[in-house]
Amino acid sequence: MSLSKRALAELIGTFWLVLGGCGSAVLAAGIPDLGLGYLGVSFAFGLTVVTMAYAIGHISGCHLNPAVSIGLVAGGRFSAKELPHYIIAQVLGAILAALLIRTIASGMEGYAGGLASNGFAEHSPHGYSMMAGLITEIVMTAMFLFIIMGATDKRAPAGLAPLAIGFTLVLIHLISIPVTNTSVNPARSTGPALIEGGIALQQLWLFWLAPIVGAVIGAFAYKTISQD
Amino acid sequence: MSLSKRALAELIGTFWLVLGGCGSAVLAAGIPDLGLGYLGVSFAFGLTVVTMAYAIGHISGCHLNPAVSIGLVAGGRFSAKELPHYIIAQVLGAILAALLIRTIASGMEGYAGGLASNGFAEHSPHGYSMMAGLITEIVMTAMFLFIIMGATDKRAPAGLAPLAIGFTLVLIHLISIPVTNTSVNPARSTGPALIEGGIALQQLWLFWLAPIVGAVIGAFAYKTISQD
Amino acid sequence: MSLSKRALAELIGTFWLVLGGCGSAVLAAGIPDLGLGYLGVSFAFGLTVVTMAYAIGHISGCHLNPAVSIGLVAGGRFSAKELPHYIIAQVLGAILAALLIRTIASGMEGYAGGLASNGFAEHSPHGYSMMAGLITEIVMTAMFLFIIMGATDKRAPAGLAPLAIGFTLVLIHLISIPVTNTSVNPARSTGPALIEGGIALQQLWLFWLAPIVGAVIGAFAYKTISQD
Amino acid sequence: MSLSKRALAELIGTFWLVLGGCGSAVLAAGIPDLGLGYLGVSFAFGLTVVTMAYAIGHISGCHLNPAVSIGLVAGGRFSAKELPHYIIAQVLGAILAALLIRTIASGMEGYAGGLASNGFAEHSPHGYSMMAGLITEIVMTAMFLFIIMGATDKRAPAGLAPLAIGFTLVLIHLISIPVTNTSVNPARSTGPALIEGGIALQQLWLFWLAPIVGAVIGAFAYKTISQD
Repeated sequence: MSLSKRALAELIGTFWLVLGGCGSAVLAAGIPDLGLGYLGVSFAFGLTVVTMAYAIGHISGCHLNPAVSIGLVAGGRFSAKELPHYIIAQVLGAILAALLIRTIASGMEGYAGGLASNGFAEHSPHGYSMMAGLITEIVMTAMFLFIIMGATDKRAPAGLAPLAIGFTLVLIHLISIPVTNTSVNPARSTGPALIEGGIALQQLWLFWLAPIVGAVIGAFAYKTISQD
Repeated sequence: MSLSKRALAELIGTFWLVLGGCGSAVLAAGIPDLGLGYLGVSFAFGLTVVTMAYAIGHISGCHLNPAVSIGLVAGGRFSAKELPHYIIAQVLGAILAALLIRTIASGMEGYAGGLASNGFAEHSPHGYSMMAGLITEIVMTAMFLFIIMGATDKRAPAGLAPLAIGFTLVLIHLISIPVTNTSVNPARSTGPALIEGGIALQQLWLFWLAPIVGAVIGAFAYKTISQD
Repeated sequence: MSLSKRALAELIGTFWLVLGGCGSAVLAAGIPDLGLGYLGVSFAFGLTVVTMAYAIGHISGCHLNPAVSIGLVAGGRFSAKELPHYIIAQVLGAILAALLIRTIASGMEGYAGGLASNGFAEHSPHGYSMMAGLITEIVMTAMFLFIIMGATDKRAPAGLAPLAIGFTLVLIHLISIPVTNTSVNPARSTGPALIEGGIALQQLWLFWLAPIVGAVIGAFAYKTISQD
Repeated sequence: MSLSKRALAELIGTFWLVLGGCGSAVLAAGIPDLGLGYLGVSFAFGLTVVTMAYAIGHISGCHLNPAVSIGLVAGGRFSAKELPHYIIAQVLGAILAALLIRTIASGMEGYAGGLASNGFAEHSPHGYSMMAGLITEIVMTAMFLFIIMGATDKRAPAGLAPLAIGFTLVLIHLISIPVTNTSVNPARSTGPALIEGGIALQQLWLFWLAPIVGAVIGAFAYKTISQD
């Protein structure tokens, strides 16, 4: 496939990730009695990856996440030359999804304006400190890349990596939504932060820094352990 | 398989989709403390497709949805000649399921008569406008067809498309039940609307129009992106 | 494998089905705030089949259910000669599980004695009539066998029938727990009814009759539709 | 792979199991309205195994649990010589995860100090007796090993054992969190108990004894039944 078509697939895929994950959080998480809660939002984020990986894995590899693309470069699985195209496409897809969520949510009276942005300290969902957020995002993204590298290893069962990787994203959210609203994905953080502005935008640096650091660590760890 | 047997499989499959999705919503979603909530209903809708796709995928392709059948024609994967048989069978299956749900639900004292019909504005579960409903249904069905086309592409892992497609329907419901009660499927909307009548029937046009428009867009998008 | 070893596998598997399904219902469903609700119990029942089908599918076929065994005879997939061994083993496994659940539950002060037995009318979880229960059990078991026959058809994807069949049981519970506490399995009904006694035992006949009738209908339906 | 690299994989994998399972319990289970409840914690524990088994199954076998390693020795699937390396690595990984959970949780004001340790009697989540806890842990671990042995049997479908085994752990938690907070894994119990100290540490013996006894029983049972 041409690089532009693969980048377009990444744009659509990341649009889906943010629409599904942040969209379910904004529209359906907190409804009294019937709402999804953090459990439903966790499944929503993870299922965007499960489903899109089966749809475009054979086209672009379905990264949907700048930290994943960078981690895969560190792990020797992706070309650094293609990083800019992938990352720009991922961020654009995330922005489009945030705009769409705002448009749909505005169709309900009383919408307060949130887009499920990530944050720490006073912008953490349950008041976790910056240090707690930093550690959480680094460790979660490191484990994410470790599992991505392992599940797409040639020795792993074929065809099931989408389930393994998507379910990892479910699990990461089950653990860490209360801490930072869970990023592990700078594009997912950037879309809502750009539209929300304010504190979400001021804290955006952490959700680029920590996932990328974590991703490189996780990819190197798998590479080291998996080779004799 | 003969066309009539394949259409019969579609009828049974769409019966299952509406029985499982709308049935769980009517019978089990809102029970205090123990009820399924929107999370459980989302899984119910999606699991009807996962399970039926393994059961009849090799017979009829398991569309269970006029928008899917039409989208697959647009995407070059299904013959327009067979559309009438498939769509009539799907709508019939949905009507039979709505009748059965009403019969079972009437076996409990105090049943109020709802069948989980779709709607917007005053008939939206949480008061979303017609425009919000229209956009949501178009985008959700477009993404549904995009993923269906991708997951059934010859380059995708074999045998796992039922999971990918069914989980997409879970996800679509996680996002959009509050907006329109989620259709993305004109047959699923028609069954309950015909039996409920009233406002559900008056608003039914949107749940034919939007899913079909979305399906054609999504199928074309995948076709364009996936070819060099 | 010898018939006695296969029957032993069925005993252990049905023990697991009742321990997991009824056990989670008795021990964990109704705990305030943290309890599983009907959603968690539905997953518990279904996951007993997913997991056991991967463990003993290659030994006994993993029926775990007299209605399934009888339906598979009707569908030409199982030998009527082996029915008695299978059914006795399944019922024994269910009884042992009910005894174990009672033993564990009695280890908590204030245990009221329920074992998640099936029922209708005054013993239905939400007051559904006998007719509603009868129809529900027949239709659910018919769809169960239809999907079992389809997912284990040679034309269906290999290795994924356990997921399809187990997820069908999840879905059946998502729909019908409020009506009858969901049986579709005479062994699952017999274990708790024998230990509880009283009304559960008086109503047990329906949970043999309806699942078996439904199973035969579902198996014949698939057989008819799937052949040209 | 060298034994030291495989042990390192076990360390990382068990770190993930405790971080995901106990971490989600500590950070996200009990939040009012939005919290995961026991259902979400059950999925978290199980998904750690699903995801890690796809990532390192081809490296170390992904035991993540001393009882599993010992059970597999009893079942003839693992070498007793390698037990010490595996068990030490598993316990170390669990301790590191407990330390990390405490670090993250301490980043929120008002953290009370719990780490989701296992217990019985006065330390059981819902007051179950020691005998109930002992029986539960033995039976659950026996069924766990029975299914592990079966799902990794050469006659079982290839590539799907991680789903079967991880979903078994989901199910085990759905049943038994109220009784003992669910161990079936001495390493998972040891990490939190060492950091919490007090009653968790005093009761730790049961969560080594019962899972190991159960594991040996389950592995022998499968071995016996599966051979003619």
